[in-house]
Amino acid sequence: MVRQNSDDIILHACVDRHAALRLNGFPCKRHDNVTANDFFSGLLAKPGNTGNAAGSAVTAANVESFPGLNTLGVSMARIDFAPWGVNRPHTHPRATEIIFVLHGSLHVGFITTANRLYARTVRKGEVFVFPGGLVHFQKNNGRAPAAVVSAFNSQLPGTQAVAQTLFGASPAVPTDVLARAFQIDAGLVEAIKSKFPPM
Amino acid sequence: MVRQNSDDIILHACVDRHAALRLNGFPCKRHDNVTANDFFSGLLAKPGNTGNAAGSAVTAANVESFPGLNTLGVSMARIDFAPWGVNRPHTHPRATEIIFVLHGSLHVGFITTANRLYARTVRKGEVFVFPGGLVHFQKNNGRAPAAVVSAFNSQLPGTQAVAQTLFGASPAVPTDVLARAFQIDAGLVEAIKSKFPPM
Amino acid sequence: MVRQNSDDIILHACVDRHAALRLNGFPCKRHDNVTANDFFSGLLAKPGNTGNAAGSAVTAANVESFPGLNTLGVSMARIDFAPWGVNRPHTHPRATEIIFVLHGSLHVGFITTANRLYARTVRKGEVFVFPGGLVHFQKNNGRAPAAVVSAFNSQLPGTQAVAQTLFGASPAVPTDVLARAFQIDAGLVEAIKSKFPPM
Amino acid sequence: MVRQNSDDIILHACVDRHAALRLNGFPCKRHDNVTANDFFSGLLAKPGNTGNAAGSAVTAANVESFPGLNTLGVSMARIDFAPWGVNRPHTHPRATEIIFVLHGSLHVGFITTANRLYARTVRKGEVFVFPGGLVHFQKNNGRAPAAVVSAFNSQLPGTQAVAQTLFGASPAVPTDVLARAFQIDAGLVEAIKSKFPPM
Amino acid sequence: MVRQNSDDIILHACVDRHAALRLNGFPCKRHDNVTANDFFSGLLAKPGNTGNAAGSAVTAANVESFPGLNTLGVSMARIDFAPWGVNRPHTHPRATEIIFVLHGSLHVGFITTANRLYARTVRKGEVFVFPGGLVHFQKNNGRAPAAVVSAFNSQLPGTQAVAQTLFGASPAVPTDVLARAFQIDAGLVEAIKSKFPPM
Amino acid sequence: MVRQNSDDIILHACVDRHAALRLNGFPCKRHDNVTANDFFSGLLAKPGNTGNAAGSAVTAANVESFPGLNTLGVSMARIDFAPWGVNRPHTHPRATEIIFVLHGSLHVGFITTANRLYARTVRKGEVFVFPGGLVHFQKNNGRAPAAVVSAFNSQLPGTQAVAQTLFGASPAVPTDVLARAFQIDAGLVEAIKSKFPPM
Repeated sequence: MVRQNSDDIILHACVDRHAALRLNGFPCKRHDNVTANDFFSGLLAKPGNTGNAAGSAVTAANVESFPGLNTLGVSMARIDFAPWGVNRPHTHPRATEIIFVLHGSLHVGFITTANRLYARTVRKGEVFVFPGGLVHFQKNNGRAPAAVVSAFNSQLPGTQAVAQTLFGASPAVPTDVLARAFQIDAGLVEAIKSKFPPM
Repeated sequence: MVRQNSDDIILHACVDRHAALRLNGFPCKRHDNVTANDFFSGLLAKPGNTGNAAGSAVTAANVESFPGLNTLGVSMARIDFAPWGVNRPHTHPRATEIIFVLHGSLHVGFITTANRLYARTVRKGEVFVFPGGLVHFQKNNGRAPAAVVSAFNSQLPGTQAVAQTLFGASPAVPTDVLARAFQIDAGLVEAIKSKFPPM
Repeated sequence: MVRQNSDDIILHACVDRHAALRLNGFPCKRHDNVTANDFFSGLLAKPGNTGNAAGSAVTAANVESFPGLNTLGVSMARIDFAPWGVNRPHTHPRATEIIFVLHGSLHVGFITTANRLYARTVRKGEVFVFPGGLVHFQKNNGRAPAAVVSAFNSQLPGTQAVAQTLFGASPAVPTDVLARAFQIDAGLVEAIKSKFPPM
Repeated sequence: MVRQNSDDIILHACVDRHAALRLNGFPCKRHDNVTANDFFSGLLAKPGNTGNAAGSAVTAANVESFPGLNTLGVSMARIDFAPWGVNRPHTHPRATEIIFVLHGSLHVGFITTANRLYARTVRKGEVFVFPGGLVHFQKNNGRAPAAVVSAFNSQLPGTQAVAQTLFGASPAVPTDVLARAFQIDAGLVEAIKSKFPPM
Repeated sequence: MVRQNSDDIILHACVDRHAALRLNGFPCKRHDNVTANDFFSGLLAKPGNTGNAAGSAVTAANVESFPGLNTLGVSMARIDFAPWGVNRPHTHPRATEIIFVLHGSLHVGFITTANRLYARTVRKGEVFVFPGGLVHFQKNNGRAPAAVVSAFNSQLPGTQAVAQTLFGASPAVPTDVLARAFQIDAGLVEAIKSKFPPM
Repeated sequence: MVRQNSDDIILHACVDRHAALRLNGFPCKRHDNVTANDFFSGLLAKPGNTGNAAGSAVTAANVESFPGLNTLGVSMARIDFAPWGVNRPHTHPRATEIIFVLHGSLHVGFITTANRLYARTVRKGEVFVFPGGLVHFQKNNGRAPAAVVSAFNSQLPGTQAVAQTLFGASPAVPTDVLARAFQIDAGLVEAIKSKFPPM
């Protein structure tokens, strides 16, 4: 058996986001220049800073921060939680998420399109799955810090934090649309908007 | 040229949701029994009843109400709006939506994962697209009724109306999670929840 | 919860077909330059001119004429019919089509790979689906104009009008192939070809 | 390294079309009963009978005649040609086709959606590709028999022979639709129809 | 806005592998019976037993052991390593794998179709990706136990441990094929086979 | 019916691998310059040279050697065998393979993820399928040359010959990993490695 084709997966692994050539919208490194480091990320090794209002921090290793994932169809994130910290309700428009608890104890749940909440407690080493595109959340229900590692079946799942999306968009979502949606008055909409300065 | 294979697309078109055999989770009708009516729906011919708090009505022709769509990867809906009616912010977890305005004038928009709002007015015969999974809304900004026909690249796109999902889920999303998400107090969360009785 | 990734769907929405960078073969606009107008098309607002031999006109809003559809997996068209006008038998090689009747009454049908015709009449507000890749047609069976809006689960479904494809290709399909296919003599093939000047 | 999961591709290879359980519309054999023969077909070993009007014969090894292909995404066919025989213009709604010439010399071509014909002669051992869904044909342009083996990226590509589809469908495509499509008179449509008795 | 469709993602989440109805080859639970536990797995909470020849243990949470993953397109595993333990070279025929190191230090690598090895050391909290279908391995290069959590973009990635597959298959791969492949003599092939009793 | 869109499949068929613009990582030719020859390959017309240790030769017509396949999702190869020649055990990471025997008689087989071998003899004109990603092999079990044509549902299936991959990678796979995998001593690993000089 003589191998006459040298087809190389590296042609499909495009790892330099500043290069001129792009594949699926992301740039490709010439495969002569690819090294093992292109398939590695140290971004998730340290806990994120949870000293914020939500008491949580999401650190992502997706194709934007880890370009070697381009075309590979996966990405990861870690989420750290201060005691009682919350990863606010959000969606990932382009992926299912599966989590593994690194330490601590969390109350986690998602809501279906029939408006049913599926929620329970998960502890160290346990796994929970959030079906693609559905609103979900996690909350540290203990006095100790907690953390999870998340995996996605997309190189760039995207995230929409629901409250931030609606009340902190730029330009702003019209107040009357939000008043109608939440069945609250315009003044209250404005008050909530004031807490979400545009990013 | 002699055709020896009688492969029939109808094997792939499964149109009876009460049948015993299912394809991708939906049942298949024996193809002897298939008729042109299986590829037809009259559900969207009449305006929905907009006499409700939102002043809008969504009528869906998806694989649940139009079983012949099974495996075909498309569905449709019509949305009717009373004057000033709103189709509240929502997502479709499994599809991109493209709309064609039947009559009237609407303010429509979606928000990206970078929290940017893209919105504008669309009028009769005009088309707007809402990229897959992103939060979007439509509002009648005129004194006359309005209506659109929507198409989706999924036989069952699903819908999550954001406020209803968060404040009307069953069982309820924990109050403290919502208070943290919206940066409002627990009493206000409870007040909003009371307006969204579980479906 | 701190959002550290600013992944933006707009990276995936490439909207300027004259730009140097292309995604899926179509060019990408820098996302700084994207506006709501990139997700909008006015192309379908006016009826096409049906003053032609077929008595019908197809107006397409696909990724060629509406570049913001790039990567979104949907497109639309409108088809206008003079009284008794016909949208001749054709296929879309890359999509299923679903139609909504804007006004008038049409006889519509498709033929399966088992050579079975599924056809019926559809009227204003009614919906019919043409499974992917199959030959189909629409005919105005009334004395008034008619129109439909079509949606496709592809940004560029493509169209092959069967008679035009076979008798009007450039260069020409060999006459003996067509004679054999239609079981007609060569003179008749030539006569039909003369009615389909190359586009 | 201890393997704790016994996940078996055979769970995905469903090979008995008379069984009660179906996967993607085709039945599954219990994997205890699977043998190497389920992945084998002898159907293409003998030339088809080309003693017919077209002078060609298509023999298919797709999921209908070779059930072990279920879920595997490929199928094959052989096409035999008498001298001057023609495989009439047709489409495969669900696959690209690639051919390898077993013997003889053929004129082959396909027509794009821009109505351009790409055609040339192919001889023994040569390869030609017909892009998904486009109308194409093959013609023996020699005095000797010819044959090709075809491969498809679908377990059930489907076939629509254009003339048979339009003039031999059951029930019949309306005569006026065909007259308008081919720009011929109704009498001639009827004459052609009479040569394509319903299958 | 009135929601008239109750389309529920749970229709797509089929969670009882002993049920009569199957979706994509796996059974579906009636959605009335679905609970949050169906989206949860405790299988990965405890280290596998590494007291074996390889000094490693793979514990999988895929659709076979965690049926709620059906249709969701993701799965997880944990791999535990004794000091110097090895997860022998293997492939996953249907997925890319991304790992996060729970503790310890590993030497990990994959080989491309151009026969190039990309390998490096990864430590606690670091991430490495193994592109779909390629041969890869992990080795504990420290004196302490190590562990990783793996995620896959498939509900059932499958695993082929190369040496076990070739030397321990049942029935056996012919000795002369293996002798030719590894360029060793038949006696040595038999000696290696004797160490891999059929599972 | 007036065709207003000239969408052309050729926009999707990118056929010049030295061009500046790339689609899916491969370059696109301007469609003005496309000819029928871009969809043609003569590479498989002549037998490969089987005068080597394995007694076999693989000749590939994939997107690297036949650029017109870009985006079309298929490719082909021919495999020639000297008497008793072997196509050593290998995988295709990105495709299912289906073979048609051109002449001769072969013993062919694949091994599942449950470590079961499915193998049998195939003769001229017979077909066998190797499910995606699984280890498989072919061996000429006769005194005459043999040959097959292979088809793949990928434009670039990739190939990993198992022994070459493990013992001939560059840089080398660590000896202790291979010793542990094959349950042989380090000296024997080195001896086998010496027979697979890096490519």
